[in-house]
Order: sequence, then structure tokens, then C-alpha cells
Amino acid sequence: MADGARLAGVLGYFGPQGTFTHQALISIAPDAEAQAFPSVMLALDAVRSGETEASLVPIENSVEGGVTATLDNLAMGAPLTIVREVLLPVQFSLAVRAGTKTKDVRRVLTHPHAAAQCRTWVTRHLPHASVTEGGSTAAAAAEVADPDSQYDAAICARIAAELYGLTVAVDRIADNAKAVTRFVLVGPAGAPPARTGHDKTTVVAYMYKDRPGALLEILEQFAGRGVNLCRIESRPTKAALGDYCFSIDVDGHVADPRIREALKGLHRVCKKVVYLGSYERADGVVPSATRGFTDEDFYDADLWLENIDPTASTRSEEA
Amino acid sequence: MADGARLAGVLGYFGPQGTFTHQALISIAPDAEAQAFPSVMLALDAVRSGETEASLVPIENSVEGGVTATLDNLAMGAPLTIVREVLLPVQFSLAVRAGTKTKDVRRVLTHPHAAAQCRTWVTRHLPHASVTEGGSTAAAAAEVADPDSQYDAAICARIAAELYGLTVAVDRIADNAKAVTRFVLVGPAGAPPARTGHDKTTVVAYMYKDRPGALLEILEQFAGRGVNLCRIESRPTKAALGDYCFSIDVDGHVADPRIREALKGLHRVCKKVVYLGSYERADGVVPSATRGFTDEDFYDADLWLENIDPTASTRSEEA
Amino acid sequence: MADGARLAGVLGYFGPQGTFTHQALISIAPDAEAQAFPSVMLALDAVRSGETEASLVPIENSVEGGVTATLDNLAMGAPLTIVREVLLPVQFSLAVRAGTKTKDVRRVLTHPHAAAQCRTWVTRHLPHASVTEGGSTAAAAAEVADPDSQYDAAICARIAAELYGLTVAVDRIADNAKAVTRFVLVGPAGAPPARTGHDKTTVVAYMYKDRPGALLEILEQFAGRGVNLCRIESRPTKAALGDYCFSIDVDGHVADPRIREALKGLHRVCKKVVYLGSYERADGVVPSATRGFTDEDFYDADLWLENIDPTASTRSEEA
Amino acid sequence: MADGARLAGVLGYFGPQGTFTHQALISIAPDAEAQAFPSVMLALDAVRSGETEASLVPIENSVEGGVTATLDNLAMGAPLTIVREVLLPVQFSLAVRAGTKTKDVRRVLTHPHAAAQCRTWVTRHLPHASVTEGGSTAAAAAEVADPDSQYDAAICARIAAELYGLTVAVDRIADNAKAVTRFVLVGPAGAPPARTGHDKTTVVAYMYKDRPGALLEILEQFAGRGVNLCRIESRPTKAALGDYCFSIDVDGHVADPRIREALKGLHRVCKKVVYLGSYERADGVVPSATRGFTDEDFYDADLWLENIDPTASTRSEEA
Repeated sequence: MADGARLAGVLGYFGPQGTFTHQALISIAPDAEAQAFPSVMLALDAVRSGETEASLVPIENSVEGGVTATLDNLAMGAPLTIVREVLLPVQFSLAVRAGTKTKDVRRVLTHPHAAAQCRTWVTRHLPHASVTEGGSTAAAAAEVADPDSQYDAAICARIAAELYGLTVAVDRIADNAKAVTRFVLVGPAGAPPARTGHDKTTVVAYMYKDRPGALLEILEQFAGRGVNLCRIESRPTKAALGDYCFSIDVDGHVADPRIREALKGLHRVCKKVVYLGSYERADGVVPSATRGFTDEDFYDADLWLENIDPTASTRSEEA
Repeated sequence: MADGARLAGVLGYFGPQGTFTHQALISIAPDAEAQAFPSVMLALDAVRSGETEASLVPIENSVEGGVTATLDNLAMGAPLTIVREVLLPVQFSLAVRAGTKTKDVRRVLTHPHAAAQCRTWVTRHLPHASVTEGGSTAAAAAEVADPDSQYDAAICARIAAELYGLTVAVDRIADNAKAVTRFVLVGPAGAPPARTGHDKTTVVAYMYKDRPGALLEILEQFAGRGVNLCRIESRPTKAALGDYCFSIDVDGHVADPRIREALKGLHRVCKKVVYLGSYERADGVVPSATRGFTDEDFYDADLWLENIDPTASTRSEEA
Repeated sequence: MADGARLAGVLGYFGPQGTFTHQALISIAPDAEAQAFPSVMLALDAVRSGETEASLVPIENSVEGGVTATLDNLAMGAPLTIVREVLLPVQFSLAVRAGTKTKDVRRVLTHPHAAAQCRTWVTRHLPHASVTEGGSTAAAAAEVADPDSQYDAAICARIAAELYGLTVAVDRIADNAKAVTRFVLVGPAGAPPARTGHDKTTVVAYMYKDRPGALLEILEQFAGRGVNLCRIESRPTKAALGDYCFSIDVDGHVADPRIREALKGLHRVCKKVVYLGSYERADGVVPSATRGFTDEDFYDADLWLENIDPTASTRSEEA
Repeated sequence: MADGARLAGVLGYFGPQGTFTHQALISIAPDAEAQAFPSVMLALDAVRSGETEASLVPIENSVEGGVTATLDNLAMGAPLTIVREVLLPVQFSLAVRAGTKTKDVRRVLTHPHAAAQCRTWVTRHLPHASVTEGGSTAAAAAEVADPDSQYDAAICARIAAELYGLTVAVDRIADNAKAVTRFVLVGPAGAPPARTGHDKTTVVAYMYKDRPGALLEILEQFAGRGVNLCRIESRPTKAALGDYCFSIDVDGHVADPRIREALKGLHRVCKKVVYLGSYERADGVVPSATRGFTDEDFYDADLWLENIDPTASTRSEEA
């Protein structure tokens, strides 16, 4: 099983080289052999086929929301396991060829998303520049790196500037300084990494369509066991309008008793549950369990019940 | 452990002889050696001391409600276990000495509760009779059995008439023909009888006073696992006004997985839970579990989770 | 409408003279003309017939629980309104004839409940005394007041000692020093007294038998509007075992928007709701509403909706 | 206010001409003057500026999920109102120049989404054809319409074929025959159209971040009033990872009492609620209200409470 701390084989990522996903991968495995894939699907299929030990893909962005290609492939494709999450501030740089001064920049090349996210900065600091939108920020950096390029600067990730030998003229030019993208490192299906005490668990729950209040019931499985919800996204199952599944992150590890019981409850009330992994939180925040929902509370309750009816658990196993 | 089918030792009951409790005891153990006790407390203490194998006491009446002496003694006294329930229609008889004709009855003796529950009948059928209220319906029968008695008739249980050699002049004279009393046979603390598939479980839940919505949370432990509530009574803990515990009957046996999980949930959210037993329903009604809450749903969920993380249950036990 | 502050007519109470109910009545209306009734039913019927302006009856005791005669009469009898509550510490006194010394007391007369609640004190302080149980604590005081009485002392309310010219030898002899009885002053059906900001509201909710989770739904009407529950008692409707109604006290006045909305919700999900009044809390505690449930939150929400669709409320009224 | 039945002014849509949105617009307003806009944002801003009376934009697709540009613009932009919904089966056609036979098609042009959704059909029926992906299905049709084009066929909406004079060689070639896109006609902020009895209401709820169980509480506002949820999408508020709002469709009209009360409840428990309109359901399904949640149940509860305290509603208004 893959874990950032001891990754040995080839790691895939949603490329090309020089993208934020690439930068995120280097941040956790600087020395790994990295292989870019042109789509999320291909990056994940490479894990399934064994071509990569694990692959890194974006799953959520604080501005754009969920990355549907990732959510749907994990939910509906052959089983995989999330083994790690990575958070990366989305920071754009103005990259130029050595010698170009910022005040002389007249023509800028970038990707439409990047153009949109840096519009205010460009208007204010490069009032005379025109911005052309191209296929990717990495490709923009490559183009600007050509000494014959008609473009003076690229708006791209810092890594792309470095990769193509450009100079970062100005860093952190995104209008929303707090934008963050969350990536997940996905390995083959298998048991999760050991719990650290500050973990997340990701599942996909398919509700029964004919069950009124199905989503409420899904949420109660967590709330009723003191489990905090970090993220919930509804996704169409592609069967019919109004037929949804829910991609959910919760605080805790499948080895935590409250998570175990909540997942079992979820399994009972849902048409299908896909378990996608338990892994350490990137932000290191340790969740606090409220009274009645600590590990000890769960163990005490187990012990209490065993004393009441010592034969029952045996009987259950025989059934 | 005591069970009506194979009761061998002395059985206690809340007497005296000839009461409805006595009649209920005979209905389940006609050949047992029966011993009357003058209060619920003494009948239950006899179980605790080993003087009786089990004792029968009333717990609920469809007209009067819960029998607080029984509820409080079971909740707050030394541990005991309910091993069986008995339902008895509350049917009063007009009992006379042989030879007395109903139309000649002028003076009737009975207990105030019985007088109240037969008032309409007496007014209609014995318009010229006066009713005197005494200490118990059984004592009334004993008094009337005396040839020198100033009373012509007693309103009492059929068993009291038989016991004192009276003739039942008219049977079933209670105004509410459907009145029922529910009794419980209480044995020493111990593992419950095996589940029959149509069982009840009784517990007492002490809530945290400082927890808003505590009762709601208690009920959700059952509702969230598809467990049906048969009875709930709030009782003061005797500590302060507003400090309650709840005496609760639910459909199911502690060996049923949905009951096990609900009880463990209850244990986590309550200050204290007293388990009072799981026993066959007297009415034989088999409860139907809804989708998601059958035994199979619980076993499937257990199995599913074991496949996800086979090591977790071991880890839990070590913790 | 009756209110302790301006009670002018005859006030009834559950007597006889010298009981705790009598003492509670004097505590709120020392100068009123008071009339004792031998039962809760008669005291309440006197309000219905206009014989009394209002009557005081016990409704709850911190040791014994709900007073079922009161709960059932208010729930099922002709409409009445609770206009005030009174809390009285249950404090027993050892009352003797003038000249009797405590150490010489050998024979004590009292009511069984009082004997039970003072047992430890008597054992410790009057080790050589015998206790006889009679019909009421007030009657015991009357008997002891007779110079020819065979009894040396009565255990009774202080008021009974005063009433019959006895001397209180020792005060506050109850084993549980914190025992409290709660009484309600009941007037004819009518609009409630104005809200004070620290009020209680009492209702009785009859649930649909065929509605699973009916009690949970009842509680959610309150919890979902931030309304705190002070007391809940289940009572049989007398129709069949398992057919209950719930007597409920909540924090707040029917003029509070959160109470109004909760009551309307209750009316929708229940077979029947009996409103029994809104009245000032005897303990003067001012409840604090949480965010989202203050009066202002309710008014803001009304205003917001009116702006969205100004025509809707008119339409509703026409429907 | 705009309503499909009596649209008189210019209607905007997310273009270009020949797209599914265009086709959806013609289906509800065949004779209207229609104006294409190159983005959802521009189509909606045209309503805000008064340039169009209303604009039609896609909001949800049964395969791709929510259209985030539409969801975010409606939620976070200046106020607008949804006045109508339109459902359109997503049906692709193989469009050729007159005279071209299907078996002779070798080069196909279309948009990547369309290529993906027709892949199986193309593989089976045009095994020798190559598919080129371009900017839009409408542009593909325009290109193929050029007699000198190197492409033999376009995969596009039927309307695009008609618009550019192509022949539909094969209709309904999408692999998923049930794919549907839902569009909304958006007008300026204002009171909603009258209720029809089969309506939907759309709102956006911003939750308090520091309120545990906030989403559960949001859902309970609807479930607790018997309101059925049709769609829920979480969207980032763009402030921080984990800060969400929820775009929600429910069954019913703001003039329905259960919707009014649910919306007021939502307003109380949320940081902010954006009301986006109540409008007739495109599928004409009439929702059935369960016991306790019909219009009559709400009116009865209002009436009942008015009788209890006639003065309270006046008092509320004064507050």
C-alpha cells in the first residue's frame, strides 16, 4: 500500500509537467519517479493496471468546488483507495524570460481559469498588457520560454517557471490569496494506512430513491455517532435526473469505533456504499470527540453489553 | 434462571391471596408453590434474598397507568431481571353466598378502585344497593363469605370468589371491558432467557440533566436502529424536581443486533442505563423489521466492514 | 381570569385543612376565602361549575412523581386553564401538645407517606417511639390535639400544627431535605395571563397509534424550534394498553413565537392537543433562547418572507 | 414578470445558435425574439440590465450534474428569479450534407462531450470513421454545412442540423438514451408566478460554519414540515475550503403553508438564505402531502392557536 512516507515505485499524476498537480506531487515525494497522464481517468487507470504505485489527482478546489472527473471515477470505477491528501495554495506567478522587466510586459499568455483568477491584479499592475488564453498554464510557460515567442510573460504555477527556465517576476498574483486545491493520492484497493488520530475517511453513499428523507437518514448515521462531516457533494448516478449519490468526507479513521459504527449504519440504510479510504489529514487538526462519542465511551458500552448477555455475540456470529 | 415453563421453586406475588396478581400467577404456574407478600417491595426483596425463585408484580394498567412502586423498585433497587410478562384482563365479578339472588343484593363491599371501575354497572343493575369501600377486593370476598356478614355481595376477582367459596352471580361487570393489567415475573439478576423472535426488552435510562434534548437523543437511539418503543414512563430520580429517568419497553431481545446496538448507543448518551431483561411478549405478536434493520442487514454490514479493514476489530480489542 | 396577584373570589383546594396544598394556597393568597375539597376531581369541578374562582391542586412531587388524578382530570375533563404554579418544599414537623418534651415522645401518629419520608429521622431521634399510620397528616394533628389522645406527637405540615394549636417540637424532619411538591392554580378555560418573559406552557398531546416514531415527532416539534422541555409524563388514554397521551411542560408562553410555532406543529402531527395554559414560572428562572430561536429571529424570518411574496399571506387567509 | 405563456420581449439564452439551450428555448417560446450570449454569466447579466426580459440557461444534467456557472451566478450574483423550468432529452443526431449516405461517412466533427456520449454508437455503426473534436456541436454543424468541408458529418443537436441546412442521417445516437438536461428561465427579481399545485421552489442556504450538524439542521427544516427535496448541491462559497452553501430544489410553492414555514425555519438557522423562485414543474407531477402537512392541516393549526390566544398575533406584530 502506498504512503507518501515510503513511496518507492512510479507515481502518476494528472499532468502535464509544470501543473499544480505536479507541484503538489513534488511537495510530498520530491525524489519519486513521476509520470504525467493527460486525464484524471488515465492517471487512475494506471493505478488499476499496476503501471503506477499510486497517482495524484485534484479532488476539490476552494473556488471551483469538486473535481467531478475525480469524484465520478473514484465512485463508479473499479475499486481504488485514497491513501493521502495534499493541500496546495493556488498561487499564480508572472513568469518571464530572463531580462524582461515587469513594466515592459505587453503580451501575456495563460489558461482561461488562471486569467480569470488574476484579472484584478493584471488590470492594476499591467494596465497596458493584453492577455491571451491558451490550453494550459504549463504550455503557456513553455511557449514564453521560446526566445522567439511573441509573448512577454506567462501566468503559471511557480513549478512551470522553473521547469522551463523562466524567471518569476512577481509571485502570488492571484486575486483570491486564500484559494486552495486539495489533491488525493490514490493507490490500489486495500486496507487503509494505520490511524494517526487525525484522519479523514471518504465514502460514496448511493441512496434508495424510494426512501423519503434518504439524505437526512444518511447524515443521521454520522451525527448520531458524533462524527463530523467535512465535505459532501451530490453527484448524479447518470441513471436519471434526481438519482443521486453523495461523496462524503468525515473526521476519523475506519479503525475508530464511532466511524465503524457510522459506516455500518450507512451500509444498512443505503442502496450501496463505496469506501474510498481513511488517511491522515493534511492540516494536522486533531478532532475532538464530544461526550458519549469518544473511543472509551464505545469500548465501555461494548463491555457493559457483554456483561449483560455474554452469549449474544457468539450467537450473532453463528447466525 | 426463572422461566414460566419450568418454574420449580417458590414463586412470590404481591398479595394477598385472591387478588388479580394471584390470579395472574396461577395462569402461568398453576402448580407452583405460591407465596403472597403484602407489598411490591417485599415481593421483590424476596427474590433478592433467595426466598423466592421469582416474584410476580403488576407493572402497568391500561386505566391507571404505570405502577410506580414496581417501576421505582426495579429501577433503583439492587439488580433484578424481568423474565416474563403476563397480561390479564381486569374482570370484576359480583360474588355472593350460595343462595343469594342478584336482585336481592342490597349491600356491596369492595375496594375503592373496583367500586370506581364498576360504578355504571352497579347503578344500572343494582339501583337499590349501597356500596361500601374497604381495604382490598380479596378481603371483601372473605368478609362476604362469613354467613353472619352484613354484606350481601363482594365485587372482586373471580379467583377470590373461588377461594372463599362464594358464587359468581355476575361476571365481567367492569364498565371498561377492555381494561388490562400487565404483570412481570421478576427473577434474580442474570442472563436473559433465549430469544423467541417475539420479545420485549426493558431498560431504565437516566439522562444527563445538562444535556439539552436528552430525551430526544434517547429516543433516537431506538428510532435510528428501527427499534419500536412499546412503553415509556418518566419517573423522578427523587433527587430534584425535573431530574428524571425513563422506564422503557422496546420490541426485541438483547440478542437481536438492532437491540444490541441501540442499547450500546443508549449507554453512551445516558448518565446510567439499567438493563431489566429481555423476555417473550405475552401477546405473541411478531414485530416486523423494516428495510435496513433486519438481522441480516446488521450481519451484512458487519461483514462488509470486516472486509474493508480486517485488522480494525483486533485493534479495538487491544485498545 | 384568575391570577394570584388579584384573586378576589373563593379559592378551592384539595384538602382537608392543614395539608400541604392548604399551606401552598396560603402562601400565595393569605387573605382569600379558601374552601377545601376532599378530592382533586371535586376541587376542579368546583371551578367548572363556578363554585370557586380557581382551585389549587398538586401536580408533581420530586419523590413520588406526577399526581395522576390531576394529570388525568386536566387532560380528559372539561376545559380548564392553569394560571399559576406554586412550589413548596415538603417539610414535615414533629408536633406535640404544649408541655410535651421531644425525649418523652413514645407514640407518634401520621400518614404512611409521611412515616416513610421521615423514617431515618425517627429511628435516630426517637429510638423508643412507635409510629402509627393513619388517614392524613392533618387528621393526625387533630387527634394529637385532643388532651385525652393516646398519641404524644404527630408528624404533619407546620400549618396543621398551627391549625390545631400544637407546638412544633422539631421542624424539617424529612429525610430528603430537598423534596418539593409543585401545585397548579387552575381557573376556568380562557385566555392565558400576559407573558412575563419567564413562563411555562402546559399541553397534553395525544399521539396517533399507527404512526411509528410518534413520540420522537412530538419532541421534534419542540427541539426543532429551540423550545426546552421541563416535564414529560406518559399517561394511558384508558382505551387500550399502549395507547398513551403525553403531559408536557415547556419553557415559554403561548405568545412567544417559538412556542406558537411549536404548538401549531404539535397540532399537525398529533391526533389531539389539549392546551392547559401559559403561566409565570414559580422559580423565576429566565430561559435563554439560542441563536435562531429568539423572538427577533422569528420576526426577521416573517419579515423576510413577506418581502419575497407579499401576496401569499393574503392568499392563505382566503383559502 | 416573465412567464413562458406570455413572453413578449427579447429572450436571452446561453448560445450559440443551434445548441441544446437554443432548442429548449424554442420549445417553450417558438415565436419569441431570441438572443444568444456566449456565457451563462452574460446571459444572466442581460436580465439584470434589462437587455432581455428573461434568459434561459442550463442548470443540471443527468450525466454531468449541476452546471456550476449557473448555480454560482444565481447564488452569488445580484438577485434574479427563476420563473420556469424546461426539461430536454439530450438527443444527438448524425447530420450530413444532402446526398451523403451514412455508410460513406469517414470523418466526423463534434464537441468532446458529444463524442464521449456517442462513442459506443460510432464504434458500432461507423467503424471506419475518425472523430475530430472541436469547439461546439453547433460550430461542427456549420463547418460540415460548407460544401468544401473535409468532414462528412457532424454530431450535433437536431436544431443545429436544421439551422445549417443539413440532413439528419440518424437521430438519437447517444449511448444513454435517457440523458436529460434541465434548464431554467430566469427573470428579474420579483414576486413568483402564482402557484399551480405542482410547483418547485429553489433556494440557496449558507450555513454557519461553527454550527455542528448545520446541514442536518437545514434538511430538518424541510423534513419536519413534510417538504420533499428534489435536488441538493453543495457549492464552495469561495471563501475557504470547507465553507459551503447548498443549492436546493423542493416540491412546492412559496405560497404553500408548509413551504412558507420551512423557508422561515431555514432563515432562522442559516447565515443567509437566497430565494431563487417558485415555478411550475416541467414534468407536471403533483406531489402528495402526507397527513399533518396538507394545506388544511396548516390552516387548522393556525385557527386552533388563534382560538387559544386571540391577542397573541396582534402582540407579535407590535413587538
